[in-house]
Amino acid sequence: MRLLSYLTLSSGLFCSAIQAASYSVNSPDGAIKFTISDSQSQPQYNVSFNNKPLLNTSKLGFEFKHAAPMKENLEISASATSSYQQTWQQPWGEARLVTDHHNELAVTFKDKDSKDTAFTLRVRVFNDGLGFRYEVNQSNALYITKELTEFNFADSHNSTAWWIPARGWNRYEYTYNTTPLQQAAHVHTPFTLKNADGVHVSVHEAALLDYAAMTLNQRRPGTFVADLTPWSDGIRVKTNGKFKTPWRTLQIGDEAIDLLNSHLILNLNEPNKLGDVSWVEPGKYLGIWWGMHIGKNTWGSGEKHGATTEQTKAYLSFAAEHGFDGVLVEGWNIGWDGDWFYNGDVFSFTQAYPDFDMKAISEHSKQVGARLIGHHETSGNVSNYRKQMHDAFELYQNSGVRQVKTGYVADGGNIKRIDERGHPRYEWHDGQFMVNEYLDNVKLAAKYQISINTHEPIKDTGLRRTYPNWLSREGARGQEFNAWGTPPNPPEHTPMLAFTRMLAGPMDFTPGIFDMSFNGLGDKTNRPQTTLAKQLALYVVLYSPIQMAADLPENYLAKPDAFQFIKDVPTDWETSIALAGEVGDYVVFARQERKRGQYTGNDWYLGAITDEHARSIDIKLDFLESNKKYEAHIYQDGEQAEWKHNPYDISINKRIVSAKDKLTLKLATSGGTAIRFKAI
Amino acid sequence: MRLLSYLTLSSGLFCSAIQAASYSVNSPDGAIKFTISDSQSQPQYNVSFNNKPLLNTSKLGFEFKHAAPMKENLEISASATSSYQQTWQQPWGEARLVTDHHNELAVTFKDKDSKDTAFTLRVRVFNDGLGFRYEVNQSNALYITKELTEFNFADSHNSTAWWIPARGWNRYEYTYNTTPLQQAAHVHTPFTLKNADGVHVSVHEAALLDYAAMTLNQRRPGTFVADLTPWSDGIRVKTNGKFKTPWRTLQIGDEAIDLLNSHLILNLNEPNKLGDVSWVEPGKYLGIWWGMHIGKNTWGSGEKHGATTEQTKAYLSFAAEHGFDGVLVEGWNIGWDGDWFYNGDVFSFTQAYPDFDMKAISEHSKQVGARLIGHHETSGNVSNYRKQMHDAFELYQNSGVRQVKTGYVADGGNIKRIDERGHPRYEWHDGQFMVNEYLDNVKLAAKYQISINTHEPIKDTGLRRTYPNWLSREGARGQEFNAWGTPPNPPEHTPMLAFTRMLAGPMDFTPGIFDMSFNGLGDKTNRPQTTLAKQLALYVVLYSPIQMAADLPENYLAKPDAFQFIKDVPTDWETSIALAGEVGDYVVFARQERKRGQYTGNDWYLGAITDEHARSIDIKLDFLESNKKYEAHIYQDGEQAEWKHNPYDISINKRIVSAKDKLTLKLATSGGTAIRFKAI
Repeated sequence: MRLLSYLTLSSGLFCSAIQAASYSVNSPDGAIKFTISDSQSQPQYNVSFNNKPLLNTSKLGFEFKHAAPMKENLEISASATSSYQQTWQQPWGEARLVTDHHNELAVTFKDKDSKDTAFTLRVRVFNDGLGFRYEVNQSNALYITKELTEFNFADSHNSTAWWIPARGWNRYEYTYNTTPLQQAAHVHTPFTLKNADGVHVSVHEAALLDYAAMTLNQRRPGTFVADLTPWSDGIRVKTNGKFKTPWRTLQIGDEAIDLLNSHLILNLNEPNKLGDVSWVEPGKYLGIWWGMHIGKNTWGSGEKHGATTEQTKAYLSFAAEHGFDGVLVEGWNIGWDGDWFYNGDVFSFTQAYPDFDMKAISEHSKQVGARLIGHHETSGNVSNYRKQMHDAFELYQNSGVRQVKTGYVADGGNIKRIDERGHPRYEWHDGQFMVNEYLDNVKLAAKYQISINTHEPIKDTGLRRTYPNWLSREGARGQEFNAWGTPPNPPEHTPMLAFTRMLAGPMDFTPGIFDMSFNGLGDKTNRPQTTLAKQLALYVVLYSPIQMAADLPENYLAKPDAFQFIKDVPTDWETSIALAGEVGDYVVFARQERKRGQYTGNDWYLGAITDEHARSIDIKLDFLESNKKYEAHIYQDGEQAEWKHNPYDISINKRIVSAKDKLTLKLATSGGTAIRFKAI
Repeated sequence: MRLLSYLTLSSGLFCSAIQAASYSVNSPDGAIKFTISDSQSQPQYNVSFNNKPLLNTSKLGFEFKHAAPMKENLEISASATSSYQQTWQQPWGEARLVTDHHNELAVTFKDKDSKDTAFTLRVRVFNDGLGFRYEVNQSNALYITKELTEFNFADSHNSTAWWIPARGWNRYEYTYNTTPLQQAAHVHTPFTLKNADGVHVSVHEAALLDYAAMTLNQRRPGTFVADLTPWSDGIRVKTNGKFKTPWRTLQIGDEAIDLLNSHLILNLNEPNKLGDVSWVEPGKYLGIWWGMHIGKNTWGSGEKHGATTEQTKAYLSFAAEHGFDGVLVEGWNIGWDGDWFYNGDVFSFTQAYPDFDMKAISEHSKQVGARLIGHHETSGNVSNYRKQMHDAFELYQNSGVRQVKTGYVADGGNIKRIDERGHPRYEWHDGQFMVNEYLDNVKLAAKYQISINTHEPIKDTGLRRTYPNWLSREGARGQEFNAWGTPPNPPEHTPMLAFTRMLAGPMDFTPGIFDMSFNGLGDKTNRPQTTLAKQLALYVVLYSPIQMAADLPENYLAKPDAFQFIKDVPTDWETSIALAGEVGDYVVFARQERKRGQYTGNDWYLGAITDEHARSIDIKLDFLESNKKYEAHIYQDGEQAEWKHNPYDISINKRIVSAKDKLTLKLATSGGTAIRFKAI
């Protein structure tokens, strides 16, 4: 039985508001209210939205290894408020200009029986959500064994949640579960949920620096407690006593798309620390990559070796001819022939296979005008990579490489490092050690004017603002699962990603598979569970400043009409608007092209995708400039299209439209619509 | 990306079979083969079924707090085999006679560089599955920090799994997830899965004594590692160096119902230690219980107090009149008026509320011939309960009580105990401390000839064989979730329980809700998501030696025809046969009545239930005795029945049948069929 706990729980809560200092701060529009209190000498907070409780009393605090916990016998000793409004510019992004408008409250807690300050809680409340962080400033080292932050959802009886499990073998690469909120157990963030009244919330964190990732553990019905990913020795976070936690964030909206139109995570990160980043180049690329996943090529040497001089040159020529910026080449370096998954020591990051002539390839790339994109697969052996990192980046820089895809393929908790005493230690991808390791890699790359696209990464928390050469990352199930995944990504996967993983930041999903009939290495049924038109729409829906055309060149040449959209679609945007959508069901984005060096581009693009259900969606074109006419190049599912038996049926047509027009998008099962609005 | 790991993983495995001692043992029918080896000086095993790998190489071993681990540099120093066949009798159960037919292999591992013995692995292989356990015999205390036992599923790419999350807030009371095997993270047992070839497996444990429960954590794709529930101080299991682990069990079958027809768990438990248990009485009962869940009554005192002398007498009279054995009364004792969920100290287990006259009730119960069933709710404060346990059982024994329902309502990890130093400690329901606490309660109850029905229990591992007064328990979402659960139990819930939770042992689900129109305390949509006929079928499908008629007497009187089945159906069985079913979809059971004191009963009963899909199922009646005729009393969904809008439409009719006949069962959406085959 269970019921009684609810009743007494709530009565319990009502009591506990008596005789306490409490301070509140509202969002600029007044809809969100955050209250901090020291009721019962425990630091705690609650949140309301539109005058309804969103989070009931939720505890705050820490436990440490060799120091007294910060959770009891505390009182508020100081508080300060301020307001802030500013618009800042991104070097690249889903929007050029971002407005940061928030009210801030900082509250300091001290021990009741002494002058000792515990921590300051700093809260920033925006119209689209809020973030709070702890600031601790002690003279002695503090090893965190527990962060006590709670998220106690007031409507948890009636909420629906979308989640993937935390601390599992496969990092973030799971299909999403849709369950009643109280059925979720231990989950990753972004953690998205919907209340009975339609209010949508996503819990995540911003500016994850020198700290462990926060996962969420539902320890009481509706109450999720922070569960920091531990070091291999069990400690959660090791600090010198002076630290700021990442911002614990809540994106809040009346409807699902409000989460997509929020810039909260970016606004809670520090400005660009790299100065001039004109060398950071968004763009589109091809790759010697999909061939390996479908068994046509191999990473390792031999007859089917993919990374040959000849094939790389051919790809570079094809890329340049069709307006792509680069070509990713995997399996170019020595180490792929052995049992590399369990022994990352085998990888060299400077020695190419004999049949891969870096010099000749680099010259060819200059001639044709498409860049080689580098690849560093560590298989999670970071010590081996660290030793070679300088030389590896130097080699690539000298070869004209501006972008490197890094890989950390290892099961969760199996990142191998050699500790101070020379012993191997096994860490999590999202523990404090790797949080720092990933960033060190990005910082070092910047010295060589190289941008990083991290696979098997730490989740994104908006650090691209501070380090704009951290271009993109993986961190969810990508296209390759459609080659061999068990199961392949279901039709709902991409409309699910839009409201979950994508709230964290750009994802290198690698869309654009045109040939759905390949025999994967996996089950023969493996293939993208989408229509062709949906593959096109993904370029607009799933934002990344770098987008791959993932399929083989011959498959694009076989469908030149559809390929045209991939050639046209940009990867850098003046502005982006989520127009419609429901979590895991469907989503529609409109984005305006950004022309580098100009204050605005001309063309608009639209992408719409749906899950296993066909649907038609009415869209007003009032996002277009009112004084302009546009030639709409429409790529939509054909009359007979449906993902299972007729994925290729696509209708491509052009018509003249203006901001006054409406469009009815007809999406097939797991279908999509992609539109270029060409200003004329 | 992920794929490569699989390839290298399997090649890795093939290598590791070279130069190792290995011993095998087969099931009596030869279908199951279990092999132990010391390859690479690591203890490991694998399992094949029908000459196909079922478990690939899976590690064995331990890590300890202050002692060297038992996992490396080990070799096999001894081995012994034996065979066993015997049929034993249960005092009560789903079958009177159980056959234990297995082959045994015991292999001892020692350190390679010394004479030190690490452990003996004892394996018993039956035709329906297998069990293995560690036997350690050291002179120094050993604190287990990790049990390294792995289950490495060979077909994990293509398997489907049914699971609930472990270490969550709500113990075992979750709806079940159905996912690809590799999408499962941290799960409870019984953990049921199905391979592509239709082979079904359930991982669980037997004879969980003085040890922590084993949960499973998928730490590599397809490889689940034992994750023992920790003490509040982080230690997993505290031993004096001499211990036997519970049996790690695999039930294995060609089809789903094979798991249901297995007696593996009982066979791996020790025989009855209580001697004469004629005082342990299976039976049916009513309760002053549902009224509280639907808001008609309260546990606490006041106007709506449920446990009054008057109402209890009335229930006892009604029970006796309609052939029930007892009446459960909750809320009879002092403590329910305060914030008991967070303060279990408030409960007295001997002082009744003034309006509950134990003496008068006890006398009335003797007069009418129905027993009072006791209730001990601890709200997880076990120290408070322990202090009063003797007096509490004594009081009940003197009042003619033969059965007590215990309750441990507390969130996971929140069982409060007072430690040696007088400090409060918070433990898990399934950690070593509580494993012992639950059993101590059962053992003490036996001294007072009282049987125990544990709610919020430790999962069942077959201990009812050794302690037959442990009659039943909860340990999953029961009927009460239909009063206020968020969500209520979905239509698939009970056909799911049959293949998951029920593999562990009897469950006090409390079926028989006849009035689906009540306004629950929860959402107004709360109600059983079943037809009326399905409520009846549950008495046959969900085995328990004690079955409640959960609804209010007036609701039974309003439907006397349907009520007749509940009055007829027994709770003790000569034999049970699962006839058909698929996990979470549907299941059909036939059971033959057992007459106490006789070697066989006469009548047979059948129960069939389905999920949200209506279906018709053909059943041969060849389980009936061939030389007899039976009058079949058939309670089935009416033509118009469907759970949502027409749950009450039931067709009740009689016909004469024999073993030669077939029946086509027509089940409505979330419907059922219940049949009494009356020997004539």
